[in-house]
Amino acid sequence: MLHEKVNQAHKILQEKDIDMWLTFVRETEASRDPCLDLILGTNCTWQSAFIITRCGKTIAIIGSLDYERIRLTGLYRDIRKYVGGIKAELLSVFSSLKPRNIAINISKDDCMADGLTYGMYELLREYTRETEYHDRFISSQNIIAALRGRKTPAEISRLKAAIQLTEAIYSAVTKFIQPGLTELDVAQYILSLVEKNKVTTAWEEKTCPAVFTGPDTAGAHAEPTNRKIEKGHVLNIDFGVKKEGYCSDIQRTWYVLRDGETQAPTAVRQGFNTIVDAIQLAKDAIEPGLPGWQIDNVARDYIVSKGYPEYPHALGHQVGRSTHDGAGLLGPRWERYGNVTNLPIEIGQVYTLEPRLPIEGYGVATAEEMIVITEKGAEWLSHPQKELFII
Amino acid sequence: MLHEKVNQAHKILQEKDIDMWLTFVRETEASRDPCLDLILGTNCTWQSAFIITRCGKTIAIIGSLDYERIRLTGLYRDIRKYVGGIKAELLSVFSSLKPRNIAINISKDDCMADGLTYGMYELLREYTRETEYHDRFISSQNIIAALRGRKTPAEISRLKAAIQLTEAIYSAVTKFIQPGLTELDVAQYILSLVEKNKVTTAWEEKTCPAVFTGPDTAGAHAEPTNRKIEKGHVLNIDFGVKKEGYCSDIQRTWYVLRDGETQAPTAVRQGFNTIVDAIQLAKDAIEPGLPGWQIDNVARDYIVSKGYPEYPHALGHQVGRSTHDGAGLLGPRWERYGNVTNLPIEIGQVYTLEPRLPIEGYGVATAEEMIVITEKGAEWLSHPQKELFII
Repeated sequence: MLHEKVNQAHKILQEKDIDMWLTFVRETEASRDPCLDLILGTNCTWQSAFIITRCGKTIAIIGSLDYERIRLTGLYRDIRKYVGGIKAELLSVFSSLKPRNIAINISKDDCMADGLTYGMYELLREYTRETEYHDRFISSQNIIAALRGRKTPAEISRLKAAIQLTEAIYSAVTKFIQPGLTELDVAQYILSLVEKNKVTTAWEEKTCPAVFTGPDTAGAHAEPTNRKIEKGHVLNIDFGVKKEGYCSDIQRTWYVLRDGETQAPTAVRQGFNTIVDAIQLAKDAIEPGLPGWQIDNVARDYIVSKGYPEYPHALGHQVGRSTHDGAGLLGPRWERYGNVTNLPIEIGQVYTLEPRLPIEGYGVATAEEMIVITEKGAEWLSHPQKELFII
Repeated sequence: MLHEKVNQAHKILQEKDIDMWLTFVRETEASRDPCLDLILGTNCTWQSAFIITRCGKTIAIIGSLDYERIRLTGLYRDIRKYVGGIKAELLSVFSSLKPRNIAINISKDDCMADGLTYGMYELLREYTRETEYHDRFISSQNIIAALRGRKTPAEISRLKAAIQLTEAIYSAVTKFIQPGLTELDVAQYILSLVEKNKVTTAWEEKTCPAVFTGPDTAGAHAEPTNRKIEKGHVLNIDFGVKKEGYCSDIQRTWYVLRDGETQAPTAVRQGFNTIVDAIQLAKDAIEPGLPGWQIDNVARDYIVSKGYPEYPHALGHQVGRSTHDGAGLLGPRWERYGNVTNLPIEIGQVYTLEPRLPIEGYGVATAEEMIVITEKGAEWLSHPQKELFII
């Protein structure tokens, strides 16, 4: 899998006309450049440079004691180890390859391409001060966006496996939910199934699953509480697993019937159906090449046109090794999203579609589906929730 | 525990004459500033600012959906949430508090104080461009070094618990080791005890424990292999646990008797005793206020004086929430260590002492002990290995 990604990186460097991509890191257990998950898969201790070039060279410069674990990855053909300091070896690689430009992991917009810390950037500038390479650094954000975004067939099949397991767990949860249980009870049940299936949660366990029942909850990103599920509640869950390194991220919504009810009240059905329709409209609007904000806009406008407030976040993010996989975002053009909502949608990307709206007096309606971008548009990866689950 | 550290931070700001400490982060599940373990203990999604001031104010500025999980930490009294972007709230906090200086997490020398990425630094400079705060940013490295280094009594007691468990596991391992088993067998046995005790390894499982048997191994930082333990091998293990958030990091050395031997050969005993003596000499030399390189020098010189090569790393690092806890290092003045070996040793710091040397034809001799700095010098936290363990 990592070999596939490193090979893909060469081709992206050619396409983007970049001579060298340098990932410069240290003590990666304490502070980890997220792109190491794509091009290394282990950790290193001292200042280390992982270099991929447009002509297919792979070079690692590392502290001597890290040699064996880097060698075992098999990803870097030319491994140079040092004891005193990295500067001499680094400059020697630059002088022998003479890159016209050196992409480093700095980005205002995409946190996944912003793994270089400020201190490490300063060191890099210091080491190259007397050389012609001092001003050849550029951002690697286009490389990383493409490398993360364009999933290989092997990556898609791992994502599908994570989704399949998540859907199976949701089916069990539907049988488990009943009035009187708390949000925490439901979360613990889900975590027990995660453990039983020998996977981990897609993001930190404290908020994965996130379970919200009834009106007046935090609605998102908060820990499950002792709040009890009651008849007449809308309950929603946000949850995903990480299986063989790849994540799912799916939300589902339930309604707990009151005595005498045979279906959810009109307000609840209307709210949920608005979510379902917004997701379908957004999916249908997707074409490779369109900017992400345009798709967000389809769902956002539709929800507002039905009289609901707009959701306070993006319609969808990419998913891969991380739940929020960075770069191209189906989101509004707000300051906090920087430039990533202007990026074109590309074939091979995997996105969530996850609008939300409050149903007054009942709770929050959500659904979060996962799609993959193809030549023709978008295809479902999850089995979309078209009807409220009724308890 | 986190409340204790946040309170300690105010006092450190006063001592260092710094008005405001700003931790500026985003998507912390993907890319985490290591100081969040000391002052937050959870994650956040959008650009977020965690501010501690010299007069004891604690302010968090966060994306609206993160509100509940930040509130639940109870660490920030003034929580401000935004939807569109963080800039306005951030500038409003600056204008109302008028800090003369604003410490941010940038450091060439200490990775633990270098959690701010380059892109986030650029954003901060952009947001403050039109204001008087644009040039008031300084490094927080002195704050973080003190905050991480000076352990509270509660932190020391957690470190002791981690050490105690590690020593108990090592006792079991001595009974388990025998010729014919592989490095991987020993590692798997240790991991089964880790799981049984419901803790995690102190660093990534692939190399924790690191197990090396016999001559010609990687010697450090590499994964256990299928190499078999044989009579006449020196075997060493590097291992630690993380218990309630705090780590141990201890190395031990065994010798496997050959048929007819009743003790290790002279060369093996001399090698191991040189390690034991080097550790004792270094410990005895420790006084608060001395620079770390001076202590490294004591052990390094002694080992070289006995005819062995010098170890290719530092004598000892700090330990706490991370195995390599940053700042003040008992290490040589090599380029790769930057300024951290010049920092004075401080009361309350916890260090390892871990020299190594090769014993030709047998393997690598190591011992790694843990100490805490007191007014009088250094006190053992681990029970030092004074004799080779014999199999």
